[in-house]
Amino acid sequence: MDALGTQLLLEFRDCKSELLNDVSFIRNALVEAALEVGATIVQESFHQFSPYGVTGILAIAESHVCIHTWPEYGYAAVDIFTCGEAFEPRKAAQILIDRFHAKEPSIIELKRGILLQTAS
Amino acid sequence: MDALGTQLLLEFRDCKSELLNDVSFIRNALVEAALEVGATIVQESFHQFSPYGVTGILAIAESHVCIHTWPEYGYAAVDIFTCGEAFEPRKAAQILIDRFHAKEPSIIELKRGILLQTAS
Repeated sequence: MDALGTQLLLEFRDCKSELLNDVSFIRNALVEAALEVGATIVQESFHQFSPYGVTGILAIAESHVCIHTWPEYGYAAVDIFTCGEAFEPRKAAQILIDRFHAKEPSIIELKRGILLQTAS
Repeated sequence: MDALGTQLLLEFRDCKSELLNDVSFIRNALVEAALEVGATIVQESFHQFSPYGVTGILAIAESHVCIHTWPEYGYAAVDIFTCGEAFEPRKAAQILIDRFHAKEPSIIELKRGILLQTAS
């Protein structure tokens, strides 16, 4: 029973507000995490919202990495979606956890597009 | 107990391969769904991969809408992530289900960034 994609949903809490509102820091963290695991970035989208919050999305050849931050709550939602075996999403997750100094982050791993074998 | 974000994870199966490999159709479907529910598009990223498959990501002021397609399996993974009450993500999901003629789609709704009340 194979799955077409693997998606990690990360909840970062108790992060420093300054980091979560720093679009340059966030862009560098996501780009470096993607490159360190060997992902191929095809497009990037980083936006600073007013008064707080950053959205960052990397479209990668292997699917996407994205983050939405709420600096006022020290919280960020991070998703890492991969297909194939090109890179290990948990490795990218660990890099981001370290970069954001997320305390006790939660990680949910989902399999997307599970292919059921039909009886022949 | 409030949550900062709502995320819908949609699994589309038994879709027509031609639709899932048509980057122009996919772009129009996502953009129209976002606009119909009143989302504000801040950037878009649509890519056709070889030999099959499309990745489409809309960064919206309210978070993101994205799709990854596997035309060879008639499958697409769609995520709709919203914050606040600016629009109803299930309405956007219904528009996309209709546009892709997805049969028996599954929808998982997640709450992201749940804020626990601490005892005073």
